Amino acid sequence: MRIAQIAPLWVPVPPRTHGGTELVVSLLTEELVRRGNEVTLFASGDSQTSGKLVSTCARAIWRDPTLKDPHACIMSLLGRVITHANDFDIIHSHTGFYFTPFAQHIPTPVVQTLHRPIYPETHRLYQEAKNVSFVAISQDQAKSATPLPIAKMIYNGIDIAKYPFAPESRGYLLFLSRIAPDKGVIEAIEAARLAKKKLIIAGNIIRRKFTGDDDYDFFVRRVKPRIDGEQIIYAGEADFGKKVELMRGADALLFPIRRREPFGLVVPESFACGTPVIAFTRGSTAELIEEGKTGFLVGSIRAMAQAAERVKELDRSECRKVAEERFSHLRMADEYETLYREILDQRLTANNSRRAQ
Amino acid sequence: MRIAQIAPLWVPVPPRTHGGTELVVSLLTEELVRRGNEVTLFASGDSQTSGKLVSTCARAIWRDPTLKDPHACIMSLLGRVITHANDFDIIHSHTGFYFTPFAQHIPTPVVQTLHRPIYPETHRLYQEAKNVSFVAISQDQAKSATPLPIAKMIYNGIDIAKYPFAPESRGYLLFLSRIAPDKGVIEAIEAARLAKKKLIIAGNIIRRKFTGDDDYDFFVRRVKPRIDGEQIIYAGEADFGKKVELMRGADALLFPIRRREPFGLVVPESFACGTPVIAFTRGSTAELIEEGKTGFLVGSIRAMAQAAERVKELDRSECRKVAEERFSHLRMADEYETLYREILDQRLTANNSRRAQ
Repeated sequence: MRIAQIAPLWVPVPPRTHGGTELVVSLLTEELVRRGNEVTLFASGDSQTSGKLVSTCARAIWRDPTLKDPHACIMSLLGRVITHANDFDIIHSHTGFYFTPFAQHIPTPVVQTLHRPIYPETHRLYQEAKNVSFVAISQDQAKSATPLPIAKMIYNGIDIAKYPFAPESRGYLLFLSRIAPDKGVIEAIEAARLAKKKLIIAGNIIRRKFTGDDDYDFFVRRVKPRIDGEQIIYAGEADFGKKVELMRGADALLFPIRRREPFGLVVPESFACGTPVIAFTRGSTAELIEEGKTGFLVGSIRAMAQAAERVKELDRSECRKVAEERFSHLRMADEYETLYREILDQRLTANNSRRAQ
Repeated sequence: MRIAQIAPLWVPVPPRTHGGTELVVSLLTEELVRRGNEVTLFASGDSQTSGKLVSTCARAIWRDPTLKDPHACIMSLLGRVITHANDFDIIHSHTGFYFTPFAQHIPTPVVQTLHRPIYPETHRLYQEAKNVSFVAISQDQAKSATPLPIAKMIYNGIDIAKYPFAPESRGYLLFLSRIAPDKGVIEAIEAARLAKKKLIIAGNIIRRKFTGDDDYDFFVRRVKPRIDGEQIIYAGEADFGKKVELMRGADALLFPIRRREPFGLVVPESFACGTPVIAFTRGSTAELIEEGKTGFLVGSIRAMAQAAERVKELDRSECRKVAEERFSHLRMADEYETLYREILDQRLTANNSRRAQ
């Protein structure tokens, strides 16, 4: 198949540090190429792919402080996709709502993965979409999208081989996420304190530029005073290697998410290393985590602390097994490839029956 | 003619307070309707027009703190324009680069007024445009756009009748603009201090949300300490009535602009009230201001202070006359209507000669 993958432009594909969506886009793109598809990746110029790369900006938006009009790069990219729409059998958009209103004006069928929570204004836009097959990344997200028709639910996948299994942990809890109020870093700290366990925090802090909010103030005012460098440690932003090492050593990953997270890629990443996850029951966590097997689902900071004390009872090899069985990028690529084919077959059938009439 | 006007969605049309572009869009739209055109205004839902209003958000983006994905409203609006493109003879975009890449995919000719300074990433996008006739709002802006082909230069216009002429001023200088470093508020304060004259400052301060930069820090750190409430006064944000009253009473408007401003609507607004303008020679100011007649062009804070001492020598009725002759919205509407007709005539001729072959 001739496939276009449209990535967000804020972070390169694959990401240098944070960027769950961009990691998934990279894994999917590379696997589709490996299977013999002709894949064009529309992404920032500092992205890398074995397919064909089309860019409208030299660097990802968050890596280029000189940009005054970052959305010009995005608009330009969307224009390119439309111009070349006829060159593709399938156009797969990962760039949120940006491409959606234009899908009805091109002949090529569009698949759109919903990578983010769906806010009211985005929901309205999606409901007006035509020629778009929406993919949810969890059952909970599909439910949150009601009454939007979801073509298929496909869990995100990771390249399991890149996360070596660690049979033994090294006696600390881990919080690994963007440092922001709705990601639950304060809750993780309070839970670790209650459990009297060491907590390592790793994650990026979004600064003012180009963002709706500045998380640096939050970090300075709310997080930093709680970091003592002994029990509560901030390890900065982690690149891929550092992330995997931190995960492998952790007794458990704390995931006290406060928003309706549609997936949470750190959960299967943690599993692959053998590390169970203790999460708030919110968004997709109850689908990803099996209670008492790969982690614990809790409703409060106190319950999270209690679970942290019990987490050594869990079998780390079970976590690894679940990652391999449910969250591999090969399974994800299978499901997307099947969806693409189903859409093309449906279209062929519809065209044939129209011709036969 | 059946005309679509696409406004930016950040501020309603017409604006409640600041918003030069939205004021110009409103004046043009209403005048085109008055002349018997069928005009559809694509703008925020809190906009007002005697034409037809099409909206994708109830309130302008800067007036709606609940929006998480403001660009969803913009994308949705662009989608609507494309869907209805065939209903129009001309589509006139005022929304910067947002619509430009899509113009080549619709049959209707697109006019785009360049309301803002042109940054490198926007310049690249414009140079790839097809089916767009660009309008510059000053000769200097047309020059800055090189090698972009400019179809026509059309100065912005104002409704002169809304600015009653004030033959006598009330002994103060005025700075009226967004409070931001590149607008020159610090320079205005220093010039007023040197001239030992009273300065009234009026303008909005952009807060963090949805903007590339937060000007509130700048206000608190750099501007506020210079305000004494006696010689240097901050009067807050001015609505239309307050703006006109402040302009009418001023000996001169100070316009120490630090960026390459493509127009500067306050300049003709000030003229209409009879108030001369003392400006830095930058961007379009040398085109708008006639040295020693409607104001002074200066190169430094010291020269601005000296000009402020001489400004009472100027004849305020000359300023009014220039506003009437050069900057009326009727002249602006004439020029746009002529451009629309020229484009349609060219297209007709091209189509006919194609048919004749």
